[in-house]
Amino acid sequence: MYAKIRRQSEQLAANLSAEDCNLQAIYFTSPVKWHLAHTTWFFETFLLNHHPKYQLYHPDFIWLFNSYYLSVNLPHTRSQRGLLSRPTLEEIYNYRKYVDNAMQQLILENPKEPYFSVGLHHEEQHQELILTDILYNFYQNPLYPAYHQKKEIQEKEPLAFQWYEIPEGIYSIGTSTSIQNYHSFAYDNEMPQHKVFLHSYKIANRLVTNAEYLEFIEAGGYENPSFWLSDGWDFIQASQRKMPYYWQKQGKDYFLFTLEGLIPLPEKSPVSHISFYEADAYARFRQTRLPTEAEWEAAVKTLYGDIISSKIAEGNFLETGLLRPVQKKSEDFFGNAWEWTVSHYEPYPNYVPWENGLGEYNGKFMNNQRVLKGGSCFTPKEHIRATYRNFFQPEMTWQAAGIRLAKS
Amino acid sequence: MYAKIRRQSEQLAANLSAEDCNLQAIYFTSPVKWHLAHTTWFFETFLLNHHPKYQLYHPDFIWLFNSYYLSVNLPHTRSQRGLLSRPTLEEIYNYRKYVDNAMQQLILENPKEPYFSVGLHHEEQHQELILTDILYNFYQNPLYPAYHQKKEIQEKEPLAFQWYEIPEGIYSIGTSTSIQNYHSFAYDNEMPQHKVFLHSYKIANRLVTNAEYLEFIEAGGYENPSFWLSDGWDFIQASQRKMPYYWQKQGKDYFLFTLEGLIPLPEKSPVSHISFYEADAYARFRQTRLPTEAEWEAAVKTLYGDIISSKIAEGNFLETGLLRPVQKKSEDFFGNAWEWTVSHYEPYPNYVPWENGLGEYNGKFMNNQRVLKGGSCFTPKEHIRATYRNFFQPEMTWQAAGIRLAKS
Amino acid sequence: MYAKIRRQSEQLAANLSAEDCNLQAIYFTSPVKWHLAHTTWFFETFLLNHHPKYQLYHPDFIWLFNSYYLSVNLPHTRSQRGLLSRPTLEEIYNYRKYVDNAMQQLILENPKEPYFSVGLHHEEQHQELILTDILYNFYQNPLYPAYHQKKEIQEKEPLAFQWYEIPEGIYSIGTSTSIQNYHSFAYDNEMPQHKVFLHSYKIANRLVTNAEYLEFIEAGGYENPSFWLSDGWDFIQASQRKMPYYWQKQGKDYFLFTLEGLIPLPEKSPVSHISFYEADAYARFRQTRLPTEAEWEAAVKTLYGDIISSKIAEGNFLETGLLRPVQKKSEDFFGNAWEWTVSHYEPYPNYVPWENGLGEYNGKFMNNQRVLKGGSCFTPKEHIRATYRNFFQPEMTWQAAGIRLAKS
Amino acid sequence: MYAKIRRQSEQLAANLSAEDCNLQAIYFTSPVKWHLAHTTWFFETFLLNHHPKYQLYHPDFIWLFNSYYLSVNLPHTRSQRGLLSRPTLEEIYNYRKYVDNAMQQLILENPKEPYFSVGLHHEEQHQELILTDILYNFYQNPLYPAYHQKKEIQEKEPLAFQWYEIPEGIYSIGTSTSIQNYHSFAYDNEMPQHKVFLHSYKIANRLVTNAEYLEFIEAGGYENPSFWLSDGWDFIQASQRKMPYYWQKQGKDYFLFTLEGLIPLPEKSPVSHISFYEADAYARFRQTRLPTEAEWEAAVKTLYGDIISSKIAEGNFLETGLLRPVQKKSEDFFGNAWEWTVSHYEPYPNYVPWENGLGEYNGKFMNNQRVLKGGSCFTPKEHIRATYRNFFQPEMTWQAAGIRLAKS
Repeated sequence: MYAKIRRQSEQLAANLSAEDCNLQAIYFTSPVKWHLAHTTWFFETFLLNHHPKYQLYHPDFIWLFNSYYLSVNLPHTRSQRGLLSRPTLEEIYNYRKYVDNAMQQLILENPKEPYFSVGLHHEEQHQELILTDILYNFYQNPLYPAYHQKKEIQEKEPLAFQWYEIPEGIYSIGTSTSIQNYHSFAYDNEMPQHKVFLHSYKIANRLVTNAEYLEFIEAGGYENPSFWLSDGWDFIQASQRKMPYYWQKQGKDYFLFTLEGLIPLPEKSPVSHISFYEADAYARFRQTRLPTEAEWEAAVKTLYGDIISSKIAEGNFLETGLLRPVQKKSEDFFGNAWEWTVSHYEPYPNYVPWENGLGEYNGKFMNNQRVLKGGSCFTPKEHIRATYRNFFQPEMTWQAAGIRLAKS
Repeated sequence: MYAKIRRQSEQLAANLSAEDCNLQAIYFTSPVKWHLAHTTWFFETFLLNHHPKYQLYHPDFIWLFNSYYLSVNLPHTRSQRGLLSRPTLEEIYNYRKYVDNAMQQLILENPKEPYFSVGLHHEEQHQELILTDILYNFYQNPLYPAYHQKKEIQEKEPLAFQWYEIPEGIYSIGTSTSIQNYHSFAYDNEMPQHKVFLHSYKIANRLVTNAEYLEFIEAGGYENPSFWLSDGWDFIQASQRKMPYYWQKQGKDYFLFTLEGLIPLPEKSPVSHISFYEADAYARFRQTRLPTEAEWEAAVKTLYGDIISSKIAEGNFLETGLLRPVQKKSEDFFGNAWEWTVSHYEPYPNYVPWENGLGEYNGKFMNNQRVLKGGSCFTPKEHIRATYRNFFQPEMTWQAAGIRLAKS
Repeated sequence: MYAKIRRQSEQLAANLSAEDCNLQAIYFTSPVKWHLAHTTWFFETFLLNHHPKYQLYHPDFIWLFNSYYLSVNLPHTRSQRGLLSRPTLEEIYNYRKYVDNAMQQLILENPKEPYFSVGLHHEEQHQELILTDILYNFYQNPLYPAYHQKKEIQEKEPLAFQWYEIPEGIYSIGTSTSIQNYHSFAYDNEMPQHKVFLHSYKIANRLVTNAEYLEFIEAGGYENPSFWLSDGWDFIQASQRKMPYYWQKQGKDYFLFTLEGLIPLPEKSPVSHISFYEADAYARFRQTRLPTEAEWEAAVKTLYGDIISSKIAEGNFLETGLLRPVQKKSEDFFGNAWEWTVSHYEPYPNYVPWENGLGEYNGKFMNNQRVLKGGSCFTPKEHIRATYRNFFQPEMTWQAAGIRLAKS
Repeated sequence: MYAKIRRQSEQLAANLSAEDCNLQAIYFTSPVKWHLAHTTWFFETFLLNHHPKYQLYHPDFIWLFNSYYLSVNLPHTRSQRGLLSRPTLEEIYNYRKYVDNAMQQLILENPKEPYFSVGLHHEEQHQELILTDILYNFYQNPLYPAYHQKKEIQEKEPLAFQWYEIPEGIYSIGTSTSIQNYHSFAYDNEMPQHKVFLHSYKIANRLVTNAEYLEFIEAGGYENPSFWLSDGWDFIQASQRKMPYYWQKQGKDYFLFTLEGLIPLPEKSPVSHISFYEADAYARFRQTRLPTEAEWEAAVKTLYGDIISSKIAEGNFLETGLLRPVQKKSEDFFGNAWEWTVSHYEPYPNYVPWENGLGEYNGKFMNNQRVLKGGSCFTPKEHIRATYRNFFQPEMTWQAAGIRLAKS
């Protein structure tokens, strides 16, 4: 498991040059090289370094590749990661090998090491970020470079739109599990399992498509403040946004920037890489709304019961290699695009953060972010589950996030 | 009722010079003169102007004193309100008289006019803002001017600290009422009444005092990131905040800027004018947390049942003329200082905004703000109720907001 | 002299309300009230306060109304002058009376007091700034208020354009005088008199008119980078400037904001209130250039010799009460609009700043500014002379500055 | 000549990784890769592309590697050069080879091609910038990487300080030459030769040393506004500068960041990489001043007459490979560090820019910059001459610039 996940990170970087791997166009992206180093740092800091015999690979890496764990040490400035031409990519691969050797030793000696599963899930999260960040960073290059070759896709028609009706009642939200098992893993922010009362509601059977979103644009959606939250309206005015961030209009034609480069807008595909503000405005345009996170989770548990994992298995995740949302014959609650919910990211009742430095993993970010559910085409399949809570600031468009509508 | 509330606004400005009434130190404050004009504009726009015989006082005022109702017209730029030396304060008073005459006519003809109560509650909200803004604007003057003379206060000892325990269960939150009656009025954001399941919790019997908050400062609270949300830590680092915004340290002594000017820190009084970040960090320092808005409301309804209005009557509101929090022998869920909750401001299930332009009153602000409950020493007593939802950005310290602790 | 100049400042403020007198729309303007206080502070600080018997009017005013004399004390923050609603305008007038009384006493006892003339010329400089700042601050008000009533002006035709040719040679630039006499006064930056070698050049006989400048606009001058300095091009791109700051285009018609309010563009009048970047681009559009400051001064001395003061007497200065440039039958090297030169503001050879605090008056600003010559319609007539060096940053448009062309 | 200069650029990059060559920490630095491409673009655009048979290497490179020639086309955004991971460094070397082949053909066919010398001097200017930018970009890496290995240097004692006295008179400044000869080349901004009258003055026989500059720091130079221009004081307050940009203080010891990495401050060496503001403040601290550019040039011509080129031959330029200022037994008017003059960068009398696109090389930057003279340890020896005018904004510290004092 360890070897497979670690290898997958390196495979994602295999087609990139050293120059590609050093790009950081904006503070919230990180260089691929940094992701490769930081995930290694995570094992070194939270596992290896607790063992007295372990020798650090390099005395400076322990703070240079810290992301935000202030209780560990003072990290290198986030916005300056792209200025680290040294250590070189080659040296980062040496660092990975060194830590992998030590980890294999540790696993043999200590297979029940706490935080071991955290390290693996953490690395999967960064696999998603490697793709997210490369997409963003490549988009700043006016030559629109491609990360990979286009795959031939026979895209299906979207499902006929339909509302699922979920009845009023008390639902069980979140999970209670141990972090020690990779397969039944959950983050602290998904715990504890607790009860939520929901009034009855409806939820859409599929994601909004690019064609549907285009109707919103062409109906003047970006010029009409009545669809927008006040902050959202200010945001699109200030950024002069007239369409999603990765869309371009040339003459009358729309294009989409993807990891294949700039392609004609695939109209059937689910819309993705939009901000919460856009998702929310689109919903209001359709006289609907976004679901709350509890509504999303209760719907999935209600609809799928015990077969959630087989639904996940069908999804368009990182493993398909498509690396953009495409239409399939299913409700796709899992994969393709993260689904914005209307819920701000807050602690669950009786939430207790992990102990020690890892307590900074989730809890301290519970402010001014919205929860997203379901995973995307960039997410490793094993990384997702119904209780998973992703979270981003509402103006963020760099993540593969789309829209599922709901209604009271 | 109309005359009384309108007169109260003018009385708040009575001791201020024309220069005082034009101050706007930062975009989120407004000049007193603007508040006097905007509350008048509100009656003109949403009531009088729907009547064909009504003549506008001035053709430009209809957009000049619009705040943010984009469906009405394009308002004057918010951050530039302090640059309107013309119309003069005197002319604004003429505008008020003109509209008051027309309103009195309208009330006689049409006592059931919809939105009439909205206009009155809107004006009360701005009475609170007049005081809030004058405090902020006067604080920018290094001579620390006083708005009013100090009243002699015999401050009591704080209540002995105690937890109220509230049992698990389904609680009724919000209200369902008509907007046409001033006394049973509620905003659209408090509706509809709905059910919430709460796990059991504890809530403090009183607000945190300045003396208690000072312990947090002197224990290094502002230097230790482990107490802070990540955004909160960034905020106090960037603003070099070492204590609440209106506090000053001179030598070893602490002072507080109030509407009386700079006074020695009143240690027994409830701490006020702190940001959500500070309230949240303080709670973590005490190994507690802030309540959710549902917990706050359920506690009040559970503790007081039908006698909420008599509890409100005891509170330290605008009418006491103290204009700063002081200690009283009661649990003070109402008055003294607004109470930050951990809840982001979101729509209630089945929320429907008011119609037409007034739909912009509340709903479009449901983003990246936290709910506050209970009213403050700046709030008119008739303006508050258990279901009232105030909301501010988490970094905001200009409002009279304090801390009530909770615990799971 | 003292009484007359002091009274003139107060007359400029006579038609303004207390609210008008407190306006500060941007850091580089100051409230009228502040000008009235600061000029008073100048006499108090540099004259009265050197006398042991003098009692300060108010202990805080000595730093509150300091502008930038860091060797005196740490001044109040420049950008926050508009937040001083207290002291009120009325109290500033009391401050002026108090200092005037003390000054009259001092003049009687000590008529040769050094710096006395500096104080008077300093006050005249601020009279010009009162008008400059009111124009800027009123322009931020979308109602476009007027400072005074329009005067009936019979504007003449501009002079026929003509080049004066000035021969190569060594010219005497600057002056050597004492600061003690008001009438032969000069600032330290005009001294010492020194020699400059000039190659032959041509200089225009009059200022560029609004009609001529309009040709530049309509020929696409603001869309063609080849006319502009690189910084100038960046500046108009960033500020989206398409015409001078005080111009407005409504349909096909151009308007000009003046102290009379918004008026149809007076095409014959000299163009004014333009930045150095615009003046420089206009000159390049005409395949000419701006003069150096030495060329301007040498031309005036060559053309007028001993009759410079009678040329000044003819000019359109503050005393005409027109308060905007108008066409007269003369070469107008003096009055109407300051004339941008291509010369950056630098010390003359052997420059020695004044002693003590007053050394900060001029020398420390010799960086990234351009010299202007000749005075404007806002300048008191007695304040100007051929050697006078005004200076502003090249992007500044708030001062009454125009264009005289030159050619090699 | 062509081959030698082109090879020298590549040799400067030889020890750098592809990641190093892509660094751009701030808008005013450029990646080494960009320099290698842009100098190639220059030959392609201004020479090869005028020949009908020439085929562009890549249709996008003609705007992608344009710097600021707006009359050629709209260049790629300056601040985003570091985001071009593609084309790769390898492809840029292919581009260079392609253009070199075409250029060799052109030279054979057309040895008198105009602008050929401009292209070579342009490339030399960028060789200096490659080193300047790498120093800056490496300094952002907290590991303080080294560009090259330390050379053993036996540094000499500084010359005893001495003033040269230069008499009053008319001096000939600038040059008149053709741009077609590489060895007698000059830029348009050095022309035409013209006369300047200078009052008598003194100029120092050597540059200020680090030890001397340290005295300024330790005497509180950075805390005392009386030494500083107003903009300079604002600059060091805002940037919290307490010493030169590349200096560090650890305990009581000072260190200097160089292309060898961080080294103990070499006290005898000339101070370098300081801003104009610091140079100017230091001069005032010593009760002296900086020379004007005419004074500098007249002194050099007076002192050396016909032997200027042998003085240049002795200097510490790029070719010594030291790559930082070191003390030699000479007056070092050439090499070691550029010398800030007090003169703002302005056109010479009768200045005419080059024709066509190349007219943008110099003239449009004549705003808010100060002239520097003499070249530095990063300058190729053949690139410098007495009339050479370098220019930077006064706050710029990234260039190797130091101090020579003057006095009236």
